[in-house]
Amino acid sequence: MVQLERIGVSLDKNLLSMFDKLISKQGYQSRSEAIRNLIRQQLSQQRLGDPKTEAVAAVFMVYDHHATKLSDRLIDLQHSVPARGGSSHLLQIISSLHVHLDEHDCLEVVVLRGRVSQINRMAENILSLKGVKLGRVNLLSTEPA
Amino acid sequence: MVQLERIGVSLDKNLLSMFDKLISKQGYQSRSEAIRNLIRQQLSQQRLGDPKTEAVAAVFMVYDHHATKLSDRLIDLQHSVPARGGSSHLLQIISSLHVHLDEHDCLEVVVLRGRVSQINRMAENILSLKGVKLGRVNLLSTEPA
Amino acid sequence: MVQLERIGVSLDKNLLSMFDKLISKQGYQSRSEAIRNLIRQQLSQQRLGDPKTEAVAAVFMVYDHHATKLSDRLIDLQHSVPARGGSSHLLQIISSLHVHLDEHDCLEVVVLRGRVSQINRMAENILSLKGVKLGRVNLLSTEPA
Amino acid sequence: MVQLERIGVSLDKNLLSMFDKLISKQGYQSRSEAIRNLIRQQLSQQRLGDPKTEAVAAVFMVYDHHATKLSDRLIDLQHSVPARGGSSHLLQIISSLHVHLDEHDCLEVVVLRGRVSQINRMAENILSLKGVKLGRVNLLSTEPA
Repeated sequence: MVQLERIGVSLDKNLLSMFDKLISKQGYQSRSEAIRNLIRQQLSQQRLGDPKTEAVAAVFMVYDHHATKLSDRLIDLQHSVPARGGSSHLLQIISSLHVHLDEHDCLEVVVLRGRVSQINRMAENILSLKGVKLGRVNLLSTEPA
Repeated sequence: MVQLERIGVSLDKNLLSMFDKLISKQGYQSRSEAIRNLIRQQLSQQRLGDPKTEAVAAVFMVYDHHATKLSDRLIDLQHSVPARGGSSHLLQIISSLHVHLDEHDCLEVVVLRGRVSQINRMAENILSLKGVKLGRVNLLSTEPA
Repeated sequence: MVQLERIGVSLDKNLLSMFDKLISKQGYQSRSEAIRNLIRQQLSQQRLGDPKTEAVAAVFMVYDHHATKLSDRLIDLQHSVPARGGSSHLLQIISSLHVHLDEHDCLEVVVLRGRVSQINRMAENILSLKGVKLGRVNLLSTEPA
Repeated sequence: MVQLERIGVSLDKNLLSMFDKLISKQGYQSRSEAIRNLIRQQLSQQRLGDPKTEAVAAVFMVYDHHATKLSDRLIDLQHSVPARGGSSHLLQIISSLHVHLDEHDCLEVVVLRGRVSQINRMAENILSLKGVKLGRVNLLSTEPA
């Protein structure tokens, strides 16, 4: 069970009023929620600096579906690593999402889980596939249980 | 039909050899492919500096599925904008992908299309939903046809 | 005079303990100080999304000092905009710092002030000068008075 | 002496024309120069992913000069590491630049040299000093000689 604690934070009126305006525009229902998210984001960034940190990632790319057999090669790459449920120290490709953008381009999101260094290596292998035009990898590290 | 052009690039031996090593490790099959991707990435970054640029985006988040009705609210948000096929100047939520990470956490990727400013606003609304612990938005802008 | 306000933030014990560990490692003397900085960083990022926001920036580059007359050209560029003290809507190049790195490379930091769009344009002009090998621009937006 | 090599790159007409437009706007005098910089930036990013890489960095911050003795503490921190000329495996604070922004705020840029992990640790120590409102660290890794 999650145990909540309450802390006090002092900050100047002007800063608080700008923060309140921002989070209300963003849609937050409470300052605590917004501040918790800033803290989690900070901890995540910190952990991701270490190549050995466990993380989840989304590799997000636009590719030309006329490029021969790209989807086959993506699937090959995805199956070159053990399926979900394997040892926790191995890279896992969990899932992927495909969107048809227009007559030329498709968008694919591949969700990975593993150490930062493994994820980055796999992301490079995916983003360098022939036909991939643009891509990015995004990592998040959730707090250890 | 795509018309190819060939240009010459001069660079010093040392830089070329480091680049060749990098792209071979990344899995590229040719220098042209790797350089084209660097160019596209640069053009994309450039265009994304303008809030009016049309882009595709992946909002990528980890959330606690015990948080009441988060998925309902995500769906509400997704349906608060017109479905795919609407006017090209409106924000479109195209698709989403859900992954069950563990007993607490889920991962969700939501694919959006629209102007940079619209995407960022919607991403803020998604990432500020109660229960969302960590999130990021990633944008790409493909070349205009 | 700055008026302080005190707010309460509730967060779970585990998250708080990880945050306390991080900020003590970083050297913060209080949680309030650390949280204020997260809030300011968030507000700054938000504002920098608008090309019209006033910001300060550091253009940071490594260049080959054998490249003919680079420092002259940097000075020309710096003087192509009005000196500090001009109209507040004009880009100002405030100062620069030069470091001799080794027999080939120098490092230069140029501090700019102006709208985000103006800063980015000037940064591009600086980073594209012949002889500049690597560079980055970093922007910060302080709260409006 | 630098030995130049010339390679051929094929890319489609549309992409080339957009690239030419971009680099002419940025001020590049040749495609080769622009492409070399993209390659160096990519190599730098790649190397910076390893905490042991040697890099140069600019820590860039805005601080309130009324905060007691901040500049003294900055100087203490700077002197807590060996001066330039020490062993190449130690962090070096090379130089710093100070700008008076307004009646409240100063801007300081501190140039560091060392391993990525050392730079990040020192940057955290600097950015967590009482009175520092906003800050960023920017790293570059030049090619090994």
